[in-house]
Amino acid sequence: MATVPLIDERAASAEVRAMFDDIRATRKVDWINNFWKALANHPPTLRRIWQGLKEVMAPGALDPLTKELIYLAVSISNGCAYCTASHGATAKRLGMSPEMLGELIAVVGMANQTNRLADGYRVPVDERFENLF
Amino acid sequence: MATVPLIDERAASAEVRAMFDDIRATRKVDWINNFWKALANHPPTLRRIWQGLKEVMAPGALDPLTKELIYLAVSISNGCAYCTASHGATAKRLGMSPEMLGELIAVVGMANQTNRLADGYRVPVDERFENLF
Amino acid sequence: MATVPLIDERAASAEVRAMFDDIRATRKVDWINNFWKALANHPPTLRRIWQGLKEVMAPGALDPLTKELIYLAVSISNGCAYCTASHGATAKRLGMSPEMLGELIAVVGMANQTNRLADGYRVPVDERFENLF
Amino acid sequence: MATVPLIDERAASAEVRAMFDDIRATRKVDWINNFWKALANHPPTLRRIWQGLKEVMAPGALDPLTKELIYLAVSISNGCAYCTASHGATAKRLGMSPEMLGELIAVVGMANQTNRLADGYRVPVDERFENLF
Amino acid sequence: MATVPLIDERAASAEVRAMFDDIRATRKVDWINNFWKALANHPPTLRRIWQGLKEVMAPGALDPLTKELIYLAVSISNGCAYCTASHGATAKRLGMSPEMLGELIAVVGMANQTNRLADGYRVPVDERFENLF
Amino acid sequence: MATVPLIDERAASAEVRAMFDDIRATRKVDWINNFWKALANHPPTLRRIWQGLKEVMAPGALDPLTKELIYLAVSISNGCAYCTASHGATAKRLGMSPEMLGELIAVVGMANQTNRLADGYRVPVDERFENLF
Repeated sequence: MATVPLIDERAASAEVRAMFDDIRATRKVDWINNFWKALANHPPTLRRIWQGLKEVMAPGALDPLTKELIYLAVSISNGCAYCTASHGATAKRLGMSPEMLGELIAVVGMANQTNRLADGYRVPVDERFENLF
Repeated sequence: MATVPLIDERAASAEVRAMFDDIRATRKVDWINNFWKALANHPPTLRRIWQGLKEVMAPGALDPLTKELIYLAVSISNGCAYCTASHGATAKRLGMSPEMLGELIAVVGMANQTNRLADGYRVPVDERFENLF
Repeated sequence: MATVPLIDERAASAEVRAMFDDIRATRKVDWINNFWKALANHPPTLRRIWQGLKEVMAPGALDPLTKELIYLAVSISNGCAYCTASHGATAKRLGMSPEMLGELIAVVGMANQTNRLADGYRVPVDERFENLF
Repeated sequence: MATVPLIDERAASAEVRAMFDDIRATRKVDWINNFWKALANHPPTLRRIWQGLKEVMAPGALDPLTKELIYLAVSISNGCAYCTASHGATAKRLGMSPEMLGELIAVVGMANQTNRLADGYRVPVDERFENLF
Repeated sequence: MATVPLIDERAASAEVRAMFDDIRATRKVDWINNFWKALANHPPTLRRIWQGLKEVMAPGALDPLTKELIYLAVSISNGCAYCTASHGATAKRLGMSPEMLGELIAVVGMANQTNRLADGYRVPVDERFENLF
Repeated sequence: MATVPLIDERAASAEVRAMFDDIRATRKVDWINNFWKALANHPPTLRRIWQGLKEVMAPGALDPLTKELIYLAVSISNGCAYCTASHGATAKRLGMSPEMLGELIAVVGMANQTNRLADGYRVPVDERFENLF
């Protein structure tokens, strides 16, 4: 059960409906997922997050699928079940194959493992990395 | 200061030296970074992690740069300074431009933001995502 | 399903019942929520946590609602669904409006975003902050 | 050492300088802290984050000090050293006393403790909380 | 609902069935839990994780129960519900009593509390610890 | 640099000095580490944390070394550098060998890896675990 009511289109203000329209048009989908219906309880957040997401996920130096894979990887690593399901679905729509998903989850697991090894051994950053980066 | 001594090549056992050789040959680099020198304190871990990493990061359905970007994104998200520096350097070597780094960090930040919005609103997973994924 | 049985009042020892009575009296509520029924499986933990919580959440330099908002924000940020539901309910009882909840979640999301930007860019702490703080 | 060069005012583009000016004017401070100098490496991120932050932290149903306390609490909980230093300094400038800081840190610690107790015992959310919230 | 189909023995390839057999034989159990059925969607991951886990959890300087307690503690601390349930069950099979579980959860909670106090106060590591360790 | 001054014995109130004495006597050490000197800025927190820690870490169904190993594992997993150094030193004083440390860090890494695999595949908890636990 959500913390707040999920605001359906019919119950939404004109401002919220306009953002819902933009979400559907931008993503070329015909429905609104629960995340946005929850955010509609606080319209300034709905507007800020949607506009930010649209900007961040647009094609740039990284293509949309690569961005979506990164988004999915972070969501898995953070244990966010909703975001894992929603960004997993989006990545699949953008072309992520089952094999790509398998490799992505393997990288996420490995990174979480070595992150803790580095922290456990408190490994100092090599001077060469500082110069390289 | 590290939790354990960083084991230099000259102080390493034959078993450890052989793994150091494989790391250099596989990565086409001429030095060993501190992470492996720390792991050399527990040779079974050094062997298992290196072999696992080599397998996971090899070209597959995802290319090596994409895997490295995902690794870097997870390391940043986990706040692991060592891994951010080392995988940042590797990603750069594999072709990550400053613009790609800027977009990657933006996606990591955005994912962390929306992960907490989804958790804060306790948004239930849409049935359509279950069917899609 | 919980890891342990939830210990109901009728099944509780005199020691546990006394703590349940204190929880109800202190909070001016007429029931015991599942968190305490789980902790009752290990009475020293039940006692230590309840006494600590009572002390930490008492009015001080920060008023009880502000403390509850901080508690809720941390629970959301940690992705703890139970604590988000229970401290959300308590904050509401102490006066948190829907608008305050919307702003709180927005701040939690933003902090999680900029925390990772700071970690991703490995920004060094400004000397002026050290002197100010 | 930062992942990217910290961009000084004199080296900044006109677009970046305009945002630096707005940061100083909005916060009534006469300098730019390292976080913004790092973000200046990716101007779209600098713009989006600064505008988002200005909106989220403006007075609303929650006053600026309460928002800053929540921001600081989340930053501490995430182990972000930079954000702990910078938002600690800002909270102090807005009126946080040493006693308030002591209580805030105590609440953050307690929440992290009970979050894990709830997760460890896998406590199911009470139906009453669902109805209350 | 899982992200991928759970692969049952009858639907599994010969390679996957061989690993399932080894899991059952090594653990002296007569069934395969869902974790492995999910990993079977990506056989290289199934193989790598199972072999790694078998190596890491084997008796060594630490006995199997102590290792399992550490595994459970980390899983609780990370808020992983599946791992808390599965490693909790394994620890119980290896001899963890209810009293031991109660103490383990108390230590996990306390560590999470003091970790954030140390981060909140940004306590510098004592020189003596560096010399001792 | 710490967020607050580290309070030295000579600058401490009688109340704080009494707790410092108890810390030294209980642990059989002749000095006070920085964590307690930081907490001394907020005496109620110093008292509550020290008394809680003394209770939680006392011999019980788990012996002090096992408790310390669990504490260290959680601190590593959370990326808390101070706690990793301090609890690593304490564990060493209580008998943790280099080999035990190597195995502990390996278990922490493996748990972090499989926690994310379980979350990435969103594996449902097996009914048998519910009945077993």
